[in-house]
Amino acid sequence: MRQASAILSFDTPGRGFTDITRAMAEWQRGTGIAEGLLTLLCRHTSASLLIQENAAREVRTDLAAWLDRIAPEGPHYAHDDEGADDMPAHLRATLTGVNLQVPVLAGRMALGTWQAIYLAEHRRMPHRREIAVHLIGA
Amino acid sequence: MRQASAILSFDTPGRGFTDITRAMAEWQRGTGIAEGLLTLLCRHTSASLLIQENAAREVRTDLAAWLDRIAPEGPHYAHDDEGADDMPAHLRATLTGVNLQVPVLAGRMALGTWQAIYLAEHRRMPHRREIAVHLIGA
Amino acid sequence: MRQASAILSFDTPGRGFTDITRAMAEWQRGTGIAEGLLTLLCRHTSASLLIQENAAREVRTDLAAWLDRIAPEGPHYAHDDEGADDMPAHLRATLTGVNLQVPVLAGRMALGTWQAIYLAEHRRMPHRREIAVHLIGA
Repeated sequence: MRQASAILSFDTPGRGFTDITRAMAEWQRGTGIAEGLLTLLCRHTSASLLIQENAAREVRTDLAAWLDRIAPEGPHYAHDDEGADDMPAHLRATLTGVNLQVPVLAGRMALGTWQAIYLAEHRRMPHRREIAVHLIGA
Repeated sequence: MRQASAILSFDTPGRGFTDITRAMAEWQRGTGIAEGLLTLLCRHTSASLLIQENAAREVRTDLAAWLDRIAPEGPHYAHDDEGADDMPAHLRATLTGVNLQVPVLAGRMALGTWQAIYLAEHRRMPHRREIAVHLIGA
Repeated sequence: MRQASAILSFDTPGRGFTDITRAMAEWQRGTGIAEGLLTLLCRHTSASLLIQENAAREVRTDLAAWLDRIAPEGPHYAHDDEGADDMPAHLRATLTGVNLQVPVLAGRMALGTWQAIYLAEHRRMPHRREIAVHLIGA
């Protein structure tokens, strides 16, 4: 039994969802751990992680529109140090969460057929985001 | 230190919450691992996992009604390939999440007294759902 | 490779966010495990865990107000055994979730610069809350 960990960086183009599934699979394979548990932590409070559908692009369009409705920009926030998109970004990150776990079985992440791992950027501007990754197993 | 993993299947009766606590406890006991970390991943994008109250049935009734309000069906989605319940199911799965972790202590899952593990089905029709489970410990 | 686990208790002053980052770091250091995976489970259904900004206090003010809007008190719930704040507390706990994971690297939790770990109390009255913690590594 052993473990591996790293801090990986990803550049986001501003608000939206960046598919990091392939990068995660490559990192996992590089560790040589074929059976175990992969954990991700997004090290930010206005970006987050989620697993969602990888096929129909409209799912991400609708998801972004729903986040806009459920945590809208507006003048009603006490916190707006970095602009109108600041506090809604914290709320959307809270709703979606900063952690993910994926069991690794027979050398591969045990994701479902239609699942991809997305880094969700909630700020309007591009950012460089860090994800702490950890894999334990054999 | 060792680990165990499996893909377990559950049949859901359509929208609602299926208590899988007992199945998880049985699988955990079957591994013989008495101290460790249990992780679940729901391998779908329109079903999810949550830990909530196991006593008052009304909690699940109110939770279902709230999910209906917060991510309603309607004509405003771009994605409706599989019907009006398709996109709301993705949103509700995103809100509740596809992962859970439960420490195992002294041979038992360390859930609180009133906590149960639920598989949440967000589609109207019955489905067979897969959960990847992983347990590491001793 | 080894593991440690415990049930930790925290007193909350009623609704709001209690920063437990320092307590988690102290517990982690006490285990002597310098590289590994830390997992938390809140053993309640009306309190939860989240990682959010530790600098601007207004972020927590806005977050509390948003939870009030998105899961408001009101006469429309079937479940109100313990008062008007009972069911909204279950909803807010469901939205934010009961689990967190933090990789431990070089002796320290790999949180981002602006991240803190909060125990979120969703009931109006003070409560004693239990968190199951587990750390595996070396």
